[in-house]
Amino acid sequence: MYIIRMDIEYDGTRFYGWQRQSKLRSVQGEIEKSLKKIYKQEILIDGAGRTDAGVHAKGQVATYGTKQRIPLESLKRALNNFLPRDIRVLSLSEEDDSFHARYSALGKTYEYKVLHSQERDCFLANYSYYYPYALDFDLIEAAMKALIGYHNFDAFKASGSSAQNPYRTIETIQMHKEGAMITFTFKGDGFLYKMVRLLVAFLLEIGNGRVDLSVLDEILINPSRKYTTKVAPAQGLYLKKVYYEKDKV
Amino acid sequence: MYIIRMDIEYDGTRFYGWQRQSKLRSVQGEIEKSLKKIYKQEILIDGAGRTDAGVHAKGQVATYGTKQRIPLESLKRALNNFLPRDIRVLSLSEEDDSFHARYSALGKTYEYKVLHSQERDCFLANYSYYYPYALDFDLIEAAMKALIGYHNFDAFKASGSSAQNPYRTIETIQMHKEGAMITFTFKGDGFLYKMVRLLVAFLLEIGNGRVDLSVLDEILINPSRKYTTKVAPAQGLYLKKVYYEKDKV
Repeated sequence: MYIIRMDIEYDGTRFYGWQRQSKLRSVQGEIEKSLKKIYKQEILIDGAGRTDAGVHAKGQVATYGTKQRIPLESLKRALNNFLPRDIRVLSLSEEDDSFHARYSALGKTYEYKVLHSQERDCFLANYSYYYPYALDFDLIEAAMKALIGYHNFDAFKASGSSAQNPYRTIETIQMHKEGAMITFTFKGDGFLYKMVRLLVAFLLEIGNGRVDLSVLDEILINPSRKYTTKVAPAQGLYLKKVYYEKDKV
Repeated sequence: MYIIRMDIEYDGTRFYGWQRQSKLRSVQGEIEKSLKKIYKQEILIDGAGRTDAGVHAKGQVATYGTKQRIPLESLKRALNNFLPRDIRVLSLSEEDDSFHARYSALGKTYEYKVLHSQERDCFLANYSYYYPYALDFDLIEAAMKALIGYHNFDAFKASGSSAQNPYRTIETIQMHKEGAMITFTFKGDGFLYKMVRLLVAFLLEIGNGRVDLSVLDEILINPSRKYTTKVAPAQGLYLKKVYYEKDKV
């Protein structure tokens, strides 16, 4: 059995998310359809993260096992030929038997793009969150700093997710401004369901003065969704990178 | 009667072109629907250019007449509220009775984006033309130079257009490279049906060595579609600006 790792990019706009669904267009479903054309048999893949409808990926990782060995260069070419234009295989590699896209993942980086402007931009509508309200960046940076570390992030977990240990470590949070575009980057050992979108919405509430910075300590100690009712929309979110053992420095 | 000028931006991906069609989603149709909600009566608009399905605009201009005076700031806000996210009104102004988006236009600028790379980029798939073949930029520049001026551009006119005078003046053609993205900019007094896309496809044929530079003089004097059979795809094209009397320096 050969274990193949795929590094994938996709524009999430026209997908009902990563996960295969019988009647709706999904990233996993489209990739499996293309693999079937190549291997002439059903191939099921596992993704590192199940992105929601509208969420993009620049570095999703998926794995599958196969007994049929196809040279990776030909396989990549064939896959990119069969795949729709909004999914692209960036690279393929053969991995150890023990490697699994999700279970072997040690961490992830997500990006979230906010268009901070009075004016919408229709070319960015599917690729960022339009936010026309005032922001105090000092307050946002203070909140970012307080979020870093090992915490109970239950206040930043959407309902509807299966029961999970709510403790996670956020290694870094960065904010980069270029023109009207603000890009937040979150690196951590794992993220709860909708956690990044809840964090971004919360940071914007803090920055806009609608929520006081002092509540952050409170909800990290006594988690509640009282101050984290808003979820930033899917189209601003990008799964940027998944980290594995060999990425460790 | 007040004449209102609208400057408009749209992402052409999900439209069947500019022109209103009874059952298909068009830019003109969507704008007219929004105007109807505001004016409570049918308003028909004229656009400076009828862009095809998939073609984008960063500076389309449209005009309409109305007896109802609405403050332009409120009108803009209301319109952008009603319009779908892939169309946006950039500005509104009141013009002289004689002003008409199409008939008053003195010229236009179009941009065409070519992704010159071995690798596709799924975030650029709807916004550029993926061209993975070799290009000789000196040859392209020589052809650009030869195209500038007053010529019979019948070789660069797609069939299916109504009979038109095939003489046009191209004032400037520019080529700008940034990373793998090549942006061609065409400024002229008017463009025939699919002329820019035929020009771009031809420039790429020249650059790739499939068509010899010498044929250009030939087809500008004795127009034929023999060497201009290819049309660059719609998604690379942007209507950038429409020029009027007052834009003259």
